Amino acid sequence: MTIQLNEFLESRKQRIEEAMPEYIEQLHAPKTLKEAMNYSLAAGGKRIRPILVLALLHTYKQPEDAGIATACAVEMLHTYSLIHDDLPAMDNDDLRRGKPTNHKVFGEAMAILAGDGLLTQSFSLIVNDTHPSAENKIRVVSELVQAAGAEGMVGGQVADMEGEAKSLTLDELQYIHENKTAKLLGFSIISGAILAGAPEEDVEKLRQYAYHLGIAFQIRDDILDIEGNQETIGKPVGSDTTNEKTTYPSILTMQGAKAKLNDHIDYAKAALNSISVPSGLLVQICDMIAERDH
Amino acid sequence: MTIQLNEFLESRKQRIEEAMPEYIEQLHAPKTLKEAMNYSLAAGGKRIRPILVLALLHTYKQPEDAGIATACAVEMLHTYSLIHDDLPAMDNDDLRRGKPTNHKVFGEAMAILAGDGLLTQSFSLIVNDTHPSAENKIRVVSELVQAAGAEGMVGGQVADMEGEAKSLTLDELQYIHENKTAKLLGFSIISGAILAGAPEEDVEKLRQYAYHLGIAFQIRDDILDIEGNQETIGKPVGSDTTNEKTTYPSILTMQGAKAKLNDHIDYAKAALNSISVPSGLLVQICDMIAERDH
Repeated sequence: MTIQLNEFLESRKQRIEEAMPEYIEQLHAPKTLKEAMNYSLAAGGKRIRPILVLALLHTYKQPEDAGIATACAVEMLHTYSLIHDDLPAMDNDDLRRGKPTNHKVFGEAMAILAGDGLLTQSFSLIVNDTHPSAENKIRVVSELVQAAGAEGMVGGQVADMEGEAKSLTLDELQYIHENKTAKLLGFSIISGAILAGAPEEDVEKLRQYAYHLGIAFQIRDDILDIEGNQETIGKPVGSDTTNEKTTYPSILTMQGAKAKLNDHIDYAKAALNSISVPSGLLVQICDMIAERDH
Repeated sequence: MTIQLNEFLESRKQRIEEAMPEYIEQLHAPKTLKEAMNYSLAAGGKRIRPILVLALLHTYKQPEDAGIATACAVEMLHTYSLIHDDLPAMDNDDLRRGKPTNHKVFGEAMAILAGDGLLTQSFSLIVNDTHPSAENKIRVVSELVQAAGAEGMVGGQVADMEGEAKSLTLDELQYIHENKTAKLLGFSIISGAILAGAPEEDVEKLRQYAYHLGIAFQIRDDILDIEGNQETIGKPVGSDTTNEKTTYPSILTMQGAKAKLNDHIDYAKAALNSISVPSGLLVQICDMIAERDH
């Protein structure tokens, strides 16, 4: 029986949004710190990263309970990166998803520390999870540092910052997005596969799926910045153009960017073709990412 | 044969200082990011945290190789906390150990990211270490998040920040230092014991040792801020008084602070009395912390 995509997305989003504040609530930590951590966790978003973890467990017909901690961990890690990105020294954003950014509410010092706390907490959730074996927890943490640290998201953020003032080549743009965005989305998929006990051959194919899905996600983002509806995407349209940011459409033309998006979606689906279980849900997620309007 | 304390401290400091840049060098990451991470790692300091990890392996007559990764990890984690503490939004310090702080050299955005990178990297070192079992790695990571996150150092930092403007009780001061300083020093000792395969009863006694050593370390710090020699400690004397910071001497008088320091040193040594191996080196470290002049 195929599950309806929207039903899956909605119900899992809800589950994640219920679980996250519980992890924070349990902490023996100063009240303001917990409030600051919770504030940004509660600020909404598609929750695509944690949902992907659960989608992998669902695909391998494993209890999704085994993925809740890791799902919350990746969302906490993503949230820390948004808090630090929004800081005055970085993007200096006052609003995120229509709400004041963390440092606007709690001050810069607390925002830095809330980010540091969420980053550290994400590792805590994984290692203190009762479901996986020690070996699998080590694999998951190892995948997370690879995706999130200097060789992943943090490195991508630095490259993005250093590339801001200049016109980038397609390779440079690709490096930024692969590291800044695709690797963490990839982590969701790989960690879900590991926790589901997927065969090693499948894990490697899912790495391909994850890579192409991640790049497709970013190309769609760039397209939406030009063609999107301001109210639907929740931020001003055309900001990349205003900021003279290099994007897929700016290098490839809009038509070229759309063609590249479709290529990556095709590659992602092709990678799913030969995994050992029916992958209907993962195919649907591909299509959703290619067509999303926010 | 008892090893000379100074010889132990010097040789291990050197070993750590050689190993750390190698871990950074290997990273596939933007050059500036690696430079920023290395800059603060190379800025010197006593390296007391990593040395403690190795001291535990030495005490249990285990190869110290098994502790190098974790030793470097705790120093990277400590260094990230210094970089973030020094930021304009936090303590706004221009100098650290006589050298310009990270953000003074690389800018605020890069300093935030270098800190984020070092924090993430510290987990990488532990999980990718080839020496410990998966179970021991999990225990070590779990101890690290406990010591470093919202329930440890980050929480202590928040409490410190919130307490800056007001006069603190001894309990409040104790909470700050236990979390901000003692827990990470404690991590060094506990992780070293775990990696050395120390018996569980010893680990619990070493937790007591670590707690009292950590508090003693901080009391000594407060005393040095009043009685220390500016050139030896490498920062201006009397800054706590100028900043109206609550300290152990300001609550307990200098005589009271010294008595409390001695009490904690005595408790620390008492905890060592009943561990299953000779603890000469750990006793010497106690005395060094009680008597250090920088």
